[in-house]
Amino acid sequence: MKTINSTPRADGFGMPAEWEPHYGCVMIFPERADSWQYGGYEARKAFAEVAEAIAESEKVTVCASFEQYENARQMLPPQIRVVEMSSNDAWARDYAPTFVTNGNEIRGVNWGFNAWGGLTDGLYFPWDKDDKMARKLCDLFDKDMYDLGGFILEGGSIHVDGEGTCITTEACLLSAGRNPKLSKNEIEKYLCEYLNVNKVIWLKNGIYNDETNEHVDNICAFVKPAEVVLAWTDDESDPQYEMSRSCLEILERETDAKGRKIKVHKLRCPKPVTITEDECRGLDTMNFEPTRTPGERLAASYVNFYISNGAVVMPFFGDPADEPAQELLASLFPERKIVPIQARDILIGGGNIHCITQQIPLFK
Amino acid sequence: MKTINSTPRADGFGMPAEWEPHYGCVMIFPERADSWQYGGYEARKAFAEVAEAIAESEKVTVCASFEQYENARQMLPPQIRVVEMSSNDAWARDYAPTFVTNGNEIRGVNWGFNAWGGLTDGLYFPWDKDDKMARKLCDLFDKDMYDLGGFILEGGSIHVDGEGTCITTEACLLSAGRNPKLSKNEIEKYLCEYLNVNKVIWLKNGIYNDETNEHVDNICAFVKPAEVVLAWTDDESDPQYEMSRSCLEILERETDAKGRKIKVHKLRCPKPVTITEDECRGLDTMNFEPTRTPGERLAASYVNFYISNGAVVMPFFGDPADEPAQELLASLFPERKIVPIQARDILIGGGNIHCITQQIPLFK
Repeated sequence: MKTINSTPRADGFGMPAEWEPHYGCVMIFPERADSWQYGGYEARKAFAEVAEAIAESEKVTVCASFEQYENARQMLPPQIRVVEMSSNDAWARDYAPTFVTNGNEIRGVNWGFNAWGGLTDGLYFPWDKDDKMARKLCDLFDKDMYDLGGFILEGGSIHVDGEGTCITTEACLLSAGRNPKLSKNEIEKYLCEYLNVNKVIWLKNGIYNDETNEHVDNICAFVKPAEVVLAWTDDESDPQYEMSRSCLEILERETDAKGRKIKVHKLRCPKPVTITEDECRGLDTMNFEPTRTPGERLAASYVNFYISNGAVVMPFFGDPADEPAQELLASLFPERKIVPIQARDILIGGGNIHCITQQIPLFK
Repeated sequence: MKTINSTPRADGFGMPAEWEPHYGCVMIFPERADSWQYGGYEARKAFAEVAEAIAESEKVTVCASFEQYENARQMLPPQIRVVEMSSNDAWARDYAPTFVTNGNEIRGVNWGFNAWGGLTDGLYFPWDKDDKMARKLCDLFDKDMYDLGGFILEGGSIHVDGEGTCITTEACLLSAGRNPKLSKNEIEKYLCEYLNVNKVIWLKNGIYNDETNEHVDNICAFVKPAEVVLAWTDDESDPQYEMSRSCLEILERETDAKGRKIKVHKLRCPKPVTITEDECRGLDTMNFEPTRTPGERLAASYVNFYISNGAVVMPFFGDPADEPAQELLASLFPERKIVPIQARDILIGGGNIHCITQQIPLFK
């Protein structure tokens, strides 16, 4: 694994859209007892279901700690590869490299990771094992690496259309815990250089109470060039309403890198999902404080799906909105199977299916 | 990674000779402070030299603990892949799977590992991380596995010619710490089934004071079908003399699986190599006892080389016998470069270059 001292853009590499062909997907086996209730047993089951659904059409590699390796190997079907790799938690989207390609070769981009805000408003300490994963994954897959470790970015805070457009949120990328010394323009330049895009669409915010500082991948995702799904609610009394409306307004007046208007599909959220007392009892404390309080609203959104070669793997919440969401995605991805996963046990950890996966573009 | 419930022989798979084409080689980065003097700094340097020499003609993967990963990545050139994997020590030959092939596909054999003798005369406790490595390496390389975890065997205790013959030592395979409930015949059957050989040549012993219970790979190695090198001394007062003589006698009266007489090339050992007081001071204790005592003889032998696609990587001991040994190997491997490595810092750990490497046959 070589570190390359230039930028993807300079070398003709860029991040493809998620619907372009994958070699495979990386995930991490969850175990952290202050993130996953009751020692993570149910979370591991849900992660395994996600891995299995993705493995139907692409190669899945699951990283597990030494302690959980055996358990992962037993729980996952043989076509899934399990490798030992240490992490602080299980958010592959945010720790893994962003893979870029020139059509023939792929390389990884190693962004800095500081647990969604470092000492300012990060979610745990330390985060050293997570931060090392992108480099180790480039090494594991024998891919050369662009090292941008000094610039804090999580994979969940960006989405691209593969045709020059990136979408992100100000709430996250301009937060005090990320790159406070950089201006919005400077941050945009990094995105343009390292994702190889020409246009960044800045939404103001994401999903209400999303503790990642409102990652874009929970509120808005490209489904094809110039088309997005946007997490939506019709309930004007819900704080999400104004947040989603603000996104809609921005998207309606924006154009993409090719000058196209953007078609917005409203993907209606489930009714507010809150954590129960019983679930909270199953979470270890952190620094002698509970990590969640009963009744706390979780950032539930159907936008947090993963597009595999053959499927769209999406969260279900046991809500009446589950099926309409599935129908909308089915209409937008007519060539893919829509695979719903009961995702409450992933959501409790603070994210969803897109957050726990990272695609690797096809390589020769 | 799938576990296969048959045997290599039943499926037409067998272990190729080491000189047949490799996909690559696995090694482990050393760090154990009761095995490697002064925290392993010099050992890591020597291991890195070995890795680099092998990487000139095949893909090398080095396994490192979480703690040593960064250090390994810095010390090793970029063409070498470093992956995180936990181990108790650094003997890839003995922990890694034995890879078998049918010419198209490769699979791994997972033997049981108990630190060269378990609770009877094993060299450390526990050995759980080592014992898991074969399985994890099959997983890492996405190869299916024959699981023979109930049968104790180390890769260093066998050599094959790829044409039906295996060579081993009674001192090791019949030792009380390996498979004491199995007869010699039963053990031989396992070798025949899992290596796919028809003939096992049993030497009585190996190198004097070799704490592996005298692995064959330190005393005798095939260099081509029906030709071996044998560690030798002309000094009749050296306890090694009778041991090497016994091997010679057996080899001279034996034939290989194809009925051929075996040509024996004497590979003369260096003068006895003993550990110094200063080196001993640099070794941590184990169970409150020193692991070595000053003046203790180390099992130095030139037979402990590794055959890579393009080279024979061999140990040097700073002894007048170094060059004659190199010349003999050069004459036996005319198409390969002979690469000597100053190996004292590997030898102190208890083995040598063959012990710290495991080849992976070429696969498609």
